Amino acid sequence: VPSDPGTLPMAELDALIGSIPTASDDVRAAVAADLDAKAQPRRSLGMLEELAARYAAIRHERRPDPPAFALVVAAADHGISRRGVSAYPPEVTAQMVAALAGGGAAVCVLARQAGARLLVVDAGSLADARPDGVLDVRTQRGSGDIVSEPAMNVAEAVRLLLAGARTAGDLIADGATAIGLGEMGIGNSAVAAALTAALLDFPAERVTGRGTGVDDAGLAAKTAAVAAAVQRAHSAPGQSGALHLLAHLGGHEIAFLAGVTLGAAARRTPVVIDGYISTSAALVATSLAPAAASALIASHLSPEPGHALALEHLRLRPLLDLGLRLGEGSGAALTMPIVSAAVAILRDMATFDSAQVTDSGA
Amino acid sequence: VPSDPGTLPMAELDALIGSIPTASDDVRAAVAADLDAKAQPRRSLGMLEELAARYAAIRHERRPDPPAFALVVAAADHGISRRGVSAYPPEVTAQMVAALAGGGAAVCVLARQAGARLLVVDAGSLADARPDGVLDVRTQRGSGDIVSEPAMNVAEAVRLLLAGARTAGDLIADGATAIGLGEMGIGNSAVAAALTAALLDFPAERVTGRGTGVDDAGLAAKTAAVAAAVQRAHSAPGQSGALHLLAHLGGHEIAFLAGVTLGAAARRTPVVIDGYISTSAALVATSLAPAAASALIASHLSPEPGHALALEHLRLRPLLDLGLRLGEGSGAALTMPIVSAAVAILRDMATFDSAQVTDSGA
Repeated sequence: VPSDPGTLPMAELDALIGSIPTASDDVRAAVAADLDAKAQPRRSLGMLEELAARYAAIRHERRPDPPAFALVVAAADHGISRRGVSAYPPEVTAQMVAALAGGGAAVCVLARQAGARLLVVDAGSLADARPDGVLDVRTQRGSGDIVSEPAMNVAEAVRLLLAGARTAGDLIADGATAIGLGEMGIGNSAVAAALTAALLDFPAERVTGRGTGVDDAGLAAKTAAVAAAVQRAHSAPGQSGALHLLAHLGGHEIAFLAGVTLGAAARRTPVVIDGYISTSAALVATSLAPAAASALIASHLSPEPGHALALEHLRLRPLLDLGLRLGEGSGAALTMPIVSAAVAILRDMATFDSAQVTDSGA
Repeated sequence: VPSDPGTLPMAELDALIGSIPTASDDVRAAVAADLDAKAQPRRSLGMLEELAARYAAIRHERRPDPPAFALVVAAADHGISRRGVSAYPPEVTAQMVAALAGGGAAVCVLARQAGARLLVVDAGSLADARPDGVLDVRTQRGSGDIVSEPAMNVAEAVRLLLAGARTAGDLIADGATAIGLGEMGIGNSAVAAALTAALLDFPAERVTGRGTGVDDAGLAAKTAAVAAAVQRAHSAPGQSGALHLLAHLGGHEIAFLAGVTLGAAARRTPVVIDGYISTSAALVATSLAPAAASALIASHLSPEPGHALALEHLRLRPLLDLGLRLGEGSGAALTMPIVSAAVAILRDMATFDSAQVTDSGA
C-alpha cells in the first residue's frame, strides 16, 4: 500500500483512538439495581433490561435522555464487483444513492418510522451525479480490485476514518444521542467477508455467503475471490494491523463507517450496527480501538454466515433475527424503537415502592 | 359445569363465530407481488415482508392504512394461585391493576412508546377497588380452584367471550385497526398450561414452566396441579369441546381475551398476541373458530416451554425472542413498531421502476 507516513494525519487518528472511553461498569451496575426495583419479577424484561443497562453505561448516565437517533448510510463501489461476486451490476450503487436521497429506499421508510435523522454519504461510489442531500466525502471513485491490488492507500483510509469521525461529531453536535450504521455498495458483502476473514483469521469459506442472492456458481467465485484477496493482503510485504488490512481489503464506505464508530464512541454515543457489512466496519474500529467495542449495540442477525462469527467475536447478542439481508441500515432502523423502549422502561416505569406492589423477591 | 343452556346467549356466540372470515389469500398474493416490485433484492426484508403480507391479508386490503393500535390488558385472579403455583401472592393482581391504571406498569410505558391506546379490563380480580379508567366486566371475583372445581360455569364463559368481542368492536369503532392482547393475573401461567395441555393434548410436564419465577419445588407443585386440573376436566361427565374446557380450566381474563380475538377477527382486525397466557386465549378462540387463526400475529417467544408448542400449533413464527417473561402485553407492545414498519414498507417504499433502479431479478 503506497503511502507517505509524513503526510498522514496519524496524530489526529491516534488522538481519536486514545480518547475513546469504555462504557461505565459503575453505571451498568447502578442501572441493574434500578431495574431490579421496578414493579416486575426480577429480569422479566430479559434482553430489554440488558439493553437499557448497556445504553446507559455507554452514555455514562444512570438515567439517559430518550435516544435521538441519526442513521448514517454510507455508499461506495468496489473493484471486486467486476468479478461476478454480486447478483447486481455496479451501476446499481449510484442508482441506490439517488433512491436513498429521494426518500423511497427501504431504509428511508424505516428511518422515518423510527424518527431517525437519515444522512446519506457517498464515500466512494462511481456515480457522476451528486444528488441533493448526499454528503460527498469521496477521495476516489470506487476502490481497487482487492484480488489484485489494494482497495485504497493508507492515506485514503485514514482520511475516511477521520471524515467518519467528524461526521459523527457533527451529528452529535446537531442533537443525535445514538447513531445507527447503514451501507450500500454492490460487491460489499465480499469486502466484508475479506475483512472478517483477515481480522478474525477465519477461512473464506466460513465467512462468505450469498449476499443479495448470488447462485452456487457465484458463491464459489465469490469465495475464491475473497480467499485470494485475503491471501494477497496477508503476503504483502511490511504490512500488518487493522489499518493496513483496511487499506488492502476495505471499501470506502466501510472505512467511513469505522470512523463514525470511533467518533461516536469517543463521545459516549451508542452505535447501532446493522448487518454483516456495518459489522465489518465495527470490527475495523474495534481492532484499532478496542474500547469502542463497548459502545456497540447489535441490531439483527444477518443470514450471512460470517455475521454470527463477527458478533460472537464482539460479544454482542443481536436483538432481532428476521432474515433481513438488505443492508442499508434496515435492521438498525427497525431496532431503534426497541432501544427507545428500553430507555423508557428505565426512565418511566414505576418501582415496587412507588406503585405499592408487594415484592416477593422473585 | 353447571349451566342452563336455555339462558345462554349461544345464538349470539354462534353468530359471532360464524361471522369470522379467513384472511384473504388473494390479497396476500397481490401484496407478495407488490413487494417483489420494490427496489431491493427479492425477499431481502425477510419476515418483515411476510408480516406485511399477513397484515394486509387479514385486513383484506392490498394497501392498508398505517396501523392504529389498541392494547387490551385483561386481569383476573385464580383459585389455583392458593396452591403455591406462583412466586407472588394473589393480592398482587389487584395491586397491578392499580399500577396499570396509574400508568407506571411496564406495559403502560411500552404502549406509550408504541403509540397504542391502552385499555385495562378487570375480568375477574378479587379487588375491592375499581381504579379509574379500568373497564370492570366481572361476573365473579376470582375463578374456582381448577384442581378441584371448574374455573367458572359455561354461562360465565360465554358472557366473558361476548364481552371481549364487544370490547373489540368498541375499540374498532373508536378507530383501532389492530389490537394487541395483554394480561395480568397471579397464577395464570398455570391456567394457560392447563388449557394448552387440554386443548393440544400435551402432558403437563411439557407445557408447565416457572412463570414469573417459582423454584424447583414450586415448579413440581405447579406441574402436579396442572396435571390434576386437566385430568379432572377431561373426566368430567358430559363435557367436551373448547367452551367446556374454557369453563373448567380457563381464567376470566383468558375467556375475555379469547372474546377480543373473536371480535377482532370478525372485523378483519389483526390480533397481536403476547406471551403464553394470551396465546392460550388465542388457542381457545381458534378452537371455537378456526378461521380466527388467520387473524393472529405472534409477537414474541416466551421462555415458557408450552409457548413454542402453542405457536407451532397455530403455525405462527414470533417476531421477537428477547427472553420476556413479564406478560402484561409487553411483547405485543414492543412488536407494534415492527408491524407499523412492515405496513410502511408496503405503502411507501419505491419500486425498481419508480426509483429507476436496475432489477437483476435476484
